Amino acid sequence: MHERLEQQMEFLREIDKLKMIGRQTYLSDGVRKENDAEHSWHLAMCALVLKEYMPEPVDAARTVELVLAHDLVEIYAGDAYAYDQAAQEAQHQKEVEAANRLFGILPEEQGRYFRSLWEEFEACESPEARFARVLDNCQPLLLNDASGGKSWREHGILAEQVYKRNERVRQWAPRLWEYLEGMIQKHVELGNLKGNGKAADSF
Amino acid sequence: MHERLEQQMEFLREIDKLKMIGRQTYLSDGVRKENDAEHSWHLAMCALVLKEYMPEPVDAARTVELVLAHDLVEIYAGDAYAYDQAAQEAQHQKEVEAANRLFGILPEEQGRYFRSLWEEFEACESPEARFARVLDNCQPLLLNDASGGKSWREHGILAEQVYKRNERVRQWAPRLWEYLEGMIQKHVELGNLKGNGKAADSF
Repeated sequence: MHERLEQQMEFLREIDKLKMIGRQTYLSDGVRKENDAEHSWHLAMCALVLKEYMPEPVDAARTVELVLAHDLVEIYAGDAYAYDQAAQEAQHQKEVEAANRLFGILPEEQGRYFRSLWEEFEACESPEARFARVLDNCQPLLLNDASGGKSWREHGILAEQVYKRNERVRQWAPRLWEYLEGMIQKHVELGNLKGNGKAADSF
Repeated sequence: MHERLEQQMEFLREIDKLKMIGRQTYLSDGVRKENDAEHSWHLAMCALVLKEYMPEPVDAARTVELVLAHDLVEIYAGDAYAYDQAAQEAQHQKEVEAANRLFGILPEEQGRYFRSLWEEFEACESPEARFARVLDNCQPLLLNDASGGKSWREHGILAEQVYKRNERVRQWAPRLWEYLEGMIQKHVELGNLKGNGKAADSF
């Protein structure tokens, strides 16, 4: 009788583990690093506040769903640091297996729904997925700025790497990018980001 | 030129502090307690999964916005433990002041929007607010169950208190309540909740 609800509750218990998946970005006070659940919540709030900066029409509610679910597969696949290229490449196959396992806990049509959210985010083909990706790139910048570039300094990140990682923000949300570029330049001047602060042609 | 965006970014930086507001509920593994941002994310996921248990038609997207924003005022007002009655009563005035301060950071119409989300959640008069409140009551039960009732045991919570706190779940989402009642009874039998496991008439 309760089989369907049991599956749903099991899923909601299992995804609690997203709170245990650490990221490299420090919270704004620089005391500890963020986890994936906090990050997903923060992106959802960004989606509600920053929609006007997307030049194309965007469904904010759909974007919220995309960002809430976008990192769930990391419960089994782990987080690959944005600036670790080798880890990024091995990540995709692990995430496909994770999606099968995690969304398989749910009743079938709900599992399909969450899988479609994850696939839409990954494919970056809808306006909502582009907006979600823009936010996923911007939010760590916001936190890195607030914490005085702590994570950048610890990893010796180059301004060029930040430019490359945020190329899609520049393409898809130019007004937001203009603001963020000023922020990046500030951290180059402060020495929190290495390099000359220009996007390298080789990227 | 960037004044509006500066206000929005300031708000998004300020609400990062929600990740630093601790709650009394342990995560499912019982190792550490949850914070408000994680809790808000988890409620949003619950809203996407459990909508079918509300007997009245509910807009899940609106509910997601309500739960994402419902605890923001605790950034300045702090969290009052659900089973601490005196703290609960002093809480409201602090939260009104917190709302003025926090939502005042945003451009005016966005501030009004977030304030309306918070007020709608507090008033419990829309189907979405009732659904949000049901989830806000259920999710700690789910975590308490997963962690073997750790927080209940530490605070010596009575089954009667859990019944009283979840009265609205019983009223507003009876099929969900039926499942949760079985869960509560299990923890009474295990000794994780004190008392005889019946709702006291005096409540």
